[in-house]
Amino acid sequence: MKKYASYLLLLLFFTAHATLSAQKTLRTLASPNKQTAVTVGLNKTGEPFYKITYRGKTAVDWSRLGFNTKEYNLHSGFKLAATKITTHDETWKPVWGEVAQIRDHYNELAYTLSDETGCTMIIRFRAYEEGAGFRYEFPLQDCKTKVTVTDELTEFQMTGDHTAWWIPGDYDSNEHVYTTGKISAIDCAWYNREHAISTQHIVKMKNVQTPITMKTADGTHIALAEAALADFGALHLETDNNALKFKASLIPSADSTVKSVNTMPFHSPWRAVLLSKDAAGILESKLILNLNEPCKIEDVSWIKPQKYVGVWWEMHVGLATWDLEATQDMMAATGREVKGRHGANTENVKRYIDFAGKYGFDGVLVEGWNIGWKDWFGKWKDEVFDFAKPYPDFDIDELTRYAREKGVRIIAHHETSSAVPSYERQMDAAYAFMNKYNQNAVKTGYVGKIIPRGEWHDGQWMNNHYLRVAERTAKNRIMVDMHEPVRPSGWHRTWPNWMACEAARGQEFNAWSTGNPPEHECILPFTRILGGPMDYTPGIFETRMNTYDPKKTEVVHTTVAKQLALYVTLYSPLQMAADLPENYEKRLDVFQFIRDVPVDWDDTRILNAAVGDYITIARRQKGAQNWFLGSITDENPRNFSMKLDFLPAGKTYEATIYADGPGAHWKENPYPVNISKRTVRKGDVLEIQLAAGGGCAVSLVVK
Amino acid sequence: MKKYASYLLLLLFFTAHATLSAQKTLRTLASPNKQTAVTVGLNKTGEPFYKITYRGKTAVDWSRLGFNTKEYNLHSGFKLAATKITTHDETWKPVWGEVAQIRDHYNELAYTLSDETGCTMIIRFRAYEEGAGFRYEFPLQDCKTKVTVTDELTEFQMTGDHTAWWIPGDYDSNEHVYTTGKISAIDCAWYNREHAISTQHIVKMKNVQTPITMKTADGTHIALAEAALADFGALHLETDNNALKFKASLIPSADSTVKSVNTMPFHSPWRAVLLSKDAAGILESKLILNLNEPCKIEDVSWIKPQKYVGVWWEMHVGLATWDLEATQDMMAATGREVKGRHGANTENVKRYIDFAGKYGFDGVLVEGWNIGWKDWFGKWKDEVFDFAKPYPDFDIDELTRYAREKGVRIIAHHETSSAVPSYERQMDAAYAFMNKYNQNAVKTGYVGKIIPRGEWHDGQWMNNHYLRVAERTAKNRIMVDMHEPVRPSGWHRTWPNWMACEAARGQEFNAWSTGNPPEHECILPFTRILGGPMDYTPGIFETRMNTYDPKKTEVVHTTVAKQLALYVTLYSPLQMAADLPENYEKRLDVFQFIRDVPVDWDDTRILNAAVGDYITIARRQKGAQNWFLGSITDENPRNFSMKLDFLPAGKTYEATIYADGPGAHWKENPYPVNISKRTVRKGDVLEIQLAAGGGCAVSLVVK
Repeated sequence: MKKYASYLLLLLFFTAHATLSAQKTLRTLASPNKQTAVTVGLNKTGEPFYKITYRGKTAVDWSRLGFNTKEYNLHSGFKLAATKITTHDETWKPVWGEVAQIRDHYNELAYTLSDETGCTMIIRFRAYEEGAGFRYEFPLQDCKTKVTVTDELTEFQMTGDHTAWWIPGDYDSNEHVYTTGKISAIDCAWYNREHAISTQHIVKMKNVQTPITMKTADGTHIALAEAALADFGALHLETDNNALKFKASLIPSADSTVKSVNTMPFHSPWRAVLLSKDAAGILESKLILNLNEPCKIEDVSWIKPQKYVGVWWEMHVGLATWDLEATQDMMAATGREVKGRHGANTENVKRYIDFAGKYGFDGVLVEGWNIGWKDWFGKWKDEVFDFAKPYPDFDIDELTRYAREKGVRIIAHHETSSAVPSYERQMDAAYAFMNKYNQNAVKTGYVGKIIPRGEWHDGQWMNNHYLRVAERTAKNRIMVDMHEPVRPSGWHRTWPNWMACEAARGQEFNAWSTGNPPEHECILPFTRILGGPMDYTPGIFETRMNTYDPKKTEVVHTTVAKQLALYVTLYSPLQMAADLPENYEKRLDVFQFIRDVPVDWDDTRILNAAVGDYITIARRQKGAQNWFLGSITDENPRNFSMKLDFLPAGKTYEATIYADGPGAHWKENPYPVNISKRTVRKGDVLEIQLAAGGGCAVSLVVK
Repeated sequence: MKKYASYLLLLLFFTAHATLSAQKTLRTLASPNKQTAVTVGLNKTGEPFYKITYRGKTAVDWSRLGFNTKEYNLHSGFKLAATKITTHDETWKPVWGEVAQIRDHYNELAYTLSDETGCTMIIRFRAYEEGAGFRYEFPLQDCKTKVTVTDELTEFQMTGDHTAWWIPGDYDSNEHVYTTGKISAIDCAWYNREHAISTQHIVKMKNVQTPITMKTADGTHIALAEAALADFGALHLETDNNALKFKASLIPSADSTVKSVNTMPFHSPWRAVLLSKDAAGILESKLILNLNEPCKIEDVSWIKPQKYVGVWWEMHVGLATWDLEATQDMMAATGREVKGRHGANTENVKRYIDFAGKYGFDGVLVEGWNIGWKDWFGKWKDEVFDFAKPYPDFDIDELTRYAREKGVRIIAHHETSSAVPSYERQMDAAYAFMNKYNQNAVKTGYVGKIIPRGEWHDGQWMNNHYLRVAERTAKNRIMVDMHEPVRPSGWHRTWPNWMACEAARGQEFNAWSTGNPPEHECILPFTRILGGPMDYTPGIFETRMNTYDPKKTEVVHTTVAKQLALYVTLYSPLQMAADLPENYEKRLDVFQFIRDVPVDWDDTRILNAAVGDYITIARRQKGAQNWFLGSITDENPRNFSMKLDFLPAGKTYEATIYADGPGAHWKENPYPVNISKRTVRKGDVLEIQLAAGGGCAVSLVVK
């Protein structure tokens, strides 16, 4: 009880015992159907506070708002200058996505505060049925020209010791395994002891990244997230284990005392609280997308969701190197002997082009095609890569011609090794080079410590860089897939050419580390992927790394059937078939699902979901009546009877079911896939049996 | 005596009591005529030390060498692996300069050390008659790939409490007034108390900048400097007031524990010790230039030394603003009322073009022509300027046409407000824009705190940026004049399109601050200008700022005659006539000297010099027989009888003498200039009378 005492006092202050002036500042904003309500007010020293209720219960209790800055007092001494409530109801169509259209329906409160000099700060709240968002706005004012934020004071006061799924508040990486546990137990010390990520920088042991998702005792799900992150340090949260409270903790700039520097007018990113009565509602939420700005690209005809293969997994399993000198692959990066040869040679790339052309893939990613790789890893070097100069064994003219002949495109790769200004100096030249060689998609990479030195992957400077790349690629009609950036915050609504990010622990970790536990893919959609698609690179058929080197013990922590199901459960408009062509050609019957599954959808239904345990999703193909279903589980086998209610009445479907076969188990026997066909209709029941670490993929093609 | 005790012990260690192994490592390198000698050796723990003698006396006593790094021990445990002595004698021709050719004559010692793993560090010494240079070299080795320097241990042990001329070791600015005083009294506290520079960052109170020049009790002059600074933090020196020793103190990166990060192979910049029996010898020294690499530009035909005027002083005296909105000038920057209008308007620029065309100037600098100025000052803003977008009242098409008609060119201005990555992102576009508009010279600027945040004007990242600009402008056949960069270190030998820098306290300070004391221009050539030309912007005829605003009390701290003499004594291939056209047109007789004086020379003679007191220099015009003489003094009036021995025998010259007129005094009466003509020949004596803060300029035109 003690830990709630101060908050009770605050609550009392706002109600029974409030001074008249403070009471007068209270405003409540309800969502259109009243499911969510935000109340905001000033206490007697002029400090702003808010609370959020959901379905009649408090979801976020009284929590502080405001900033510490170098120039101004933006946290106390405020007076309420004006309030304005408006309503908004709009339906918009994403360029690509999980559904054909999205409703953006909210009530909005502009809560305008003024300080004693008459300068104003607006806190803008939006109440949706499925949560709330708010941001701080600073209009253009002669009295304030620059704000150097040293701390954001925003708090999220939880009302109980919820179960949380979190990764540590690392300034430089989000490629961590998730921890499941109570708020009161959040502690990142383990991550620092393990030091599993080569570029990690975990400073505060109680800091976690957003989105963080929680489940309350009554089953309500709460996700704290950020939307439209721009010109600001990313929002991490500092946990108060006792008070069960999170406080904003922005990633600093190279000047560690500075979180952001902004010039008027500006506004903070949105702080978002996603609320749902169950886990499925979190997956269905479009709140983060809705808080982002509409599409800024006028002609979007060139933006094409797609599947691709590429010269990539070879480097991860130790068969090929990025550099011509054959010294750089993931064996080298993890301190082992390098045996492979340069992967991006003309002959090998042609092999992938042949494969892509034969099986209907749109793109062939080629990593290691350009000079610079010998110096790329761990050197914190300022000038590493030339983005317009291929290695001599990569015949770009011939490969461009060959790819065109086969009806595919080479996907460019711009690893920066985090020497970011060097990349920015070359962007114009690099994108012109891509256009010249018929390339319209690029995978960028930010491995290693950032240059400008002292900046962090998630700091203001880099967050602006990522957006700059999205804008500059859009200008050049190029789609972009970023690896190792800050986690996304819904920017793909505004810049739909920004197809996907890595920004989390991807498949690759299974090739050369302790890997991703079977529950990993059951957590990602509730956390990281809330902000935008992930280039997870599913589709590994040869899951045991000792196939490549008897000394290797690493395995992919799923069955092969689960690898198929990920194409449905982990939504992305850009999906790789990550394994080697020869592995696919050995199991073309299983591979058929990867060939068939779309990457763009008109409808999505969450059939069941429990964070960290299981997810079953059905999606309807864009512009067609075909449905695809994916179901995955964690380390526990599960059986589901799934009623096919989502199918339209009166239509008959051929279901092809790719299920875990007899004895399937992610570790003991990942390979068996049982492929069966049956005819189904709306209302039929599909019995789904998931092995430990298993999954099931189903294509439902209208007859 | 106590303070020398440890050094005596060291000396003894190297001689009488040395262990055999340590004694065996001693090597001495003498200059070709033996005037300078460097001795280097390892002590018994394998730490390298050196000493320098000059004309039989010790100039730098035993001093430590080496580095602290994050990865390796580069300061002790070394063994001597090899030594090699070579000799070099070459004469080269600068593209422009003070003399037509320069002799580069030295003996060189490559002192190769190896550590216990067999990795090597070469310390390369060069002994010249007028001093010595050394640098550290790290060849490409598999055993070492990256070196993160945390401290450079190089020392310069002085042999007495010399008089020194120094400015504080500011990370961000070199625009300080010089202090004259004993080594034992060096202390920067005053500079921090005054805080006279808006962007200053003085961390260590005993740190001074290089070049620092000293005079010993016997009149020997010693300057400690740096040459060919690249990919490293600038060399400042930490003073030990008791031991009379300087230790290298490199400017850190944004990560304050890191001074530089380099990848093998690399080498440090040169550390240079300039030695002379008198002050004049320091001015004559070409040691810093010789330590730089030869010219890297093949076709130098487009590089033209020149004089220019410009829309610039207007902003400093409060008549005009940089921004269209008329809010930004030096009145605003110094907290006073802004009254001027936007300076870079078409009509006003035409006035300067007319003036330049009429009086034979090559260029017209225009500041404030492009959008962004409203947000330029003090906001630490990331994206401020567009370098290809003029203000609407600057008709660039018409002005380009008009300038071409008048035979002059507009000099572009790229103020970055230190948002450097923003500039780098725009460089290609900006230089293409310049080429389009017939502009072949640009003045760049770095006002304010650096972005990338945490970096410093003098750190590794910025030092690489300045060189990058020199290279990229050269590629576009553009000459560059940098304001607020690191002080130069002789790079104009390698990149002669890098015409000049500000990088010191220039004329502008006289317009809006306590100004530059009369001795200032008598110190600059012995310190800052040793590294390269300065764009000091001489030529102010209206020296009293109350002319522009009765409330202003600032004055230029020279007489008008001294302003003329500066065109000779402060060498630069790019010289501004900085005052307003209307001020020149009032005194066209005096202005004639500025019209006549060249900016490129075949020969230079230092006629007399005393650091901080006076300088008299005669120079012979490039490709002609005309000579020009400049003589300046500090706050003391002086008389010199100057024998014209430098004139060639048998030729008659018309001397036009611009001398301080009756009653001239920098403060009391700066204006009188006495213009007289006489015919002179070799051996004639010129009586020069310099007023307090005065000067004398003489043109000697062959008859």
